[in-house]
Amino acid sequence: MKDDQELYEAKVSSKPIYDGKVLHLFVDDVKLPDGKPAIREYVKQVNAVAVLPLTKEGEVLCVRQYRYAHEKVLLEIPAGKLDSDDEDPEVGARRELREETGAECAALTFLGGFIGSPAILTEVVCLYLAEGLSFHAPSPDEDEFLDVVRIPLGRLVDMVLSGEIEDGKTQTAILKVAELLRRRGEMA
Amino acid sequence: MKDDQELYEAKVSSKPIYDGKVLHLFVDDVKLPDGKPAIREYVKQVNAVAVLPLTKEGEVLCVRQYRYAHEKVLLEIPAGKLDSDDEDPEVGARRELREETGAECAALTFLGGFIGSPAILTEVVCLYLAEGLSFHAPSPDEDEFLDVVRIPLGRLVDMVLSGEIEDGKTQTAILKVAELLRRRGEMA
Repeated sequence: MKDDQELYEAKVSSKPIYDGKVLHLFVDDVKLPDGKPAIREYVKQVNAVAVLPLTKEGEVLCVRQYRYAHEKVLLEIPAGKLDSDDEDPEVGARRELREETGAECAALTFLGGFIGSPAILTEVVCLYLAEGLSFHAPSPDEDEFLDVVRIPLGRLVDMVLSGEIEDGKTQTAILKVAELLRRRGEMA
Repeated sequence: MKDDQELYEAKVSSKPIYDGKVLHLFVDDVKLPDGKPAIREYVKQVNAVAVLPLTKEGEVLCVRQYRYAHEKVLLEIPAGKLDSDDEDPEVGARRELREETGAECAALTFLGGFIGSPAILTEVVCLYLAEGLSFHAPSPDEDEFLDVVRIPLGRLVDMVLSGEIEDGKTQTAILKVAELLRRRGEMA
């Protein structure tokens, strides 16, 4: 196995290209491990959270949301950006869960980080399992239109396997939770 | 369940902001379902492929690669962009597998699409399982420095569960293949 240092790309200079509402584009000149020059185009964003809310009946609260970049409605778990990079991701997870589905949870289990596009996006999404749910009215952001649906976890695993669920964080969270419950002895 | 039309966002106008080497940034004015205006910032890229190469001993060929946007080396499955949006993803998958690991495969199984960031990236990554491997010398792109390592699939599942593997497509592919082998009766 190579030493990390043999794979390292050194920053030479960084140029901000676009400073937007949700994304910030940079183009950097870098020096490759062999000393040759290259450029790296990437997008900085505030980090995010995604939450798989599991009811005691084994159902998951999912959201159906129109994704403009894909020109269609996708089925996803509740998710959103942190208010800032300093926000505790658990606080963000509870907020997004409440805003998008109206649910609060007694227990939040960290499932690890999720990097959606390692070459292009700096964003890491903290994934959580939410259990012990209680229900209130949702309060989505004013530019956010969502449809909350309940789907049994076993059915969602089948939908991931058949390719029906395309959103990456949602696929990862569903399969992780199914494996976690299997290890707990709570799922076949 | 709401009708998709109730969630739809209509394009009003589209402005190209940056036309780069690997990414193309746009900012569009849209009309929300309630008629109010909003903007959508998003990145167009050529679609991509990612391949989980499984040896007959149950090991996976993984690549360790420095990811500049994350300032560290990540463990991933072989992946890369298609040559164009018209390229057959299976052809691209075989090429990336050969270039990055030196392996060719007798069988390629489509595992579904993977959307890394549904709000920001138009990119869909086609995931594949590659079996029946034969080995040659790798030939990575000239600005690509990789370290190929073999790790048993069961160990990778543990690493995903413990949060050691952050790359999203890699997490999804590992858990999907483990579930697929379980359904085939080839994995406990």
